[in-house]
Amino acid sequence: MLNKKLAIGIDIGGTNTVFGFVDREGNILVEDRLKTASFQKIEDFVGALFKIMAATGSRIGKGFEIMGYGIGAPMGNIHKGTIEYSASLPWKGIVPLAEVFHRHTELPVIVTNDANASAVGEMIYGGARGMRDFVVITLGTGLGSGFVVDGKLMYGHDGFAGELGHTPIRPEPSERECGCGKKGCLETYVSATGLTKTFIKILADSRQPSEFKKLSIDEINAEMIFRAAKKGDKLAIKAFHITGKILGYKLADVVSHTSPEAIFLLGGLALAEELIFKPAKESMEEYLLSIYKGKVKLLPSKLNSKNAAVLGASSLVWSDLKS
Amino acid sequence: MLNKKLAIGIDIGGTNTVFGFVDREGNILVEDRLKTASFQKIEDFVGALFKIMAATGSRIGKGFEIMGYGIGAPMGNIHKGTIEYSASLPWKGIVPLAEVFHRHTELPVIVTNDANASAVGEMIYGGARGMRDFVVITLGTGLGSGFVVDGKLMYGHDGFAGELGHTPIRPEPSERECGCGKKGCLETYVSATGLTKTFIKILADSRQPSEFKKLSIDEINAEMIFRAAKKGDKLAIKAFHITGKILGYKLADVVSHTSPEAIFLLGGLALAEELIFKPAKESMEEYLLSIYKGKVKLLPSKLNSKNAAVLGASSLVWSDLKS
Repeated sequence: MLNKKLAIGIDIGGTNTVFGFVDREGNILVEDRLKTASFQKIEDFVGALFKIMAATGSRIGKGFEIMGYGIGAPMGNIHKGTIEYSASLPWKGIVPLAEVFHRHTELPVIVTNDANASAVGEMIYGGARGMRDFVVITLGTGLGSGFVVDGKLMYGHDGFAGELGHTPIRPEPSERECGCGKKGCLETYVSATGLTKTFIKILADSRQPSEFKKLSIDEINAEMIFRAAKKGDKLAIKAFHITGKILGYKLADVVSHTSPEAIFLLGGLALAEELIFKPAKESMEEYLLSIYKGKVKLLPSKLNSKNAAVLGASSLVWSDLKS
Repeated sequence: MLNKKLAIGIDIGGTNTVFGFVDREGNILVEDRLKTASFQKIEDFVGALFKIMAATGSRIGKGFEIMGYGIGAPMGNIHKGTIEYSASLPWKGIVPLAEVFHRHTELPVIVTNDANASAVGEMIYGGARGMRDFVVITLGTGLGSGFVVDGKLMYGHDGFAGELGHTPIRPEPSERECGCGKKGCLETYVSATGLTKTFIKILADSRQPSEFKKLSIDEINAEMIFRAAKKGDKLAIKAFHITGKILGYKLADVVSHTSPEAIFLLGGLALAEELIFKPAKESMEEYLLSIYKGKVKLLPSKLNSKNAAVLGASSLVWSDLKS
């Protein structure tokens, strides 16, 4: 019998690193995790990761073959296999991730940022199957984006294409501070944290009584605002409305750059469904040039948002083998 | 002796259509033009064009072989060989340009918009030789853009990628009306007409005496403002400064989408050199995310702006033969 071919998908986040052994059809056979933040040195992190991956792999038993490692990480650079100046990881400067991996394996190691990984995942396992031109926007703590152009992930000259989270949404100075050091970046408005900031400002302006006014600013989070909006809280609905409007405005801009067939939204905010999709769609259509109007699909990702990053990362291996 | 291989590059503009017989090295052997606006029917236009092209070709004598027709036209769609809903041409709706051409020829006919054609021209004959990822911005009456991603022109799903001229530069309503029916589009600020509008508003605000205040608003044009700025006219310099700043702000956005190696400026405004490049560069760097800062070249096109469109259009033929 032939061995079953598997790819290992690894999602390196600021708190946890999650990985899974994934088959060509997108089934995660086994998965596990370790605490990213426990490792001050990249060598120690990768060493510990290989140990736990070996233990996890042994749970599947025999009859499989690993084809490579796909890694999604903040500021992951596909050209160099590095992570560069990530603000959320414990390792500073330029981290030679693929190089350190290759002390443990001779298999292909592909590194890119998490949103790019999700875009490849959407193309191989998700709603973008058969599409040649589309965009994936990840709406989590921040905002990430991955562009597929003519069937291939767009990396750009430096390997850093698709950093929409840090496009300024206003030319005039905005006071909303971003983790990148700039002000008024898209992700300070359109993300779980952006929604929360907008909601707190709505609370400040409003004379309407609200249970939220009994909470501290640090206590309020996007999950609470979502639950309140679902129950019909007008101020919470307004926060989603404003967030969706800004997103849609920016998506019109994205369309004018790359003319995609569809834009997929993935991650926590995308789970709010019509609360975010309706104002985003309306606003996108309002700002679109007429040749694009009514043509660009705005869709929820078909990847389970819990597994998207691992699936996406694993799919890098298949997409690498193809080319 | 082998025949010399030539491509015919055709630039269809609202007033004139210019064409040239171009060799692989970018030399225009002969060229001529006809009045686009004289032809109400596309069939008549193409018929007249083939007549004049035959006459022009006979001036070269024998010993050449035509490889195909490359056409740059507003709203040219490469996927379908059509011109779609152009506001500046006499033919309305969807014009089946390649189809009408094929009544006269069996050779390849490639249609795209003028800025895309210029981007291919820059790659084949100009300053982008050897580059895989770059952007060309054409600054004429309007603002056009063409993106090359991983060595190929980006068309997008609909064939209309790269309509930067019609990205809104402000989320809040701007009063500046665009020919596309929207308000606040980039080209209403960054183009020859945009510069002129900005300059007139500066004149209105200023108490400084100026010869321009004796002219009618319709008389003032970008050429005059350029000459005045060159002579040190402070208000004219200010108009270039504001225009360059807005351009640079938008270019930072472009970089966050596609991470290009270089951005080329082409057309009338680009000839103003430091008057436009200096504020554009400063403003782009100001808004760039740190991973991009200091890395993206902002360069004048190396195509002669007079011939760029014809050269670019002809280069579509070579790029088509290659693929």
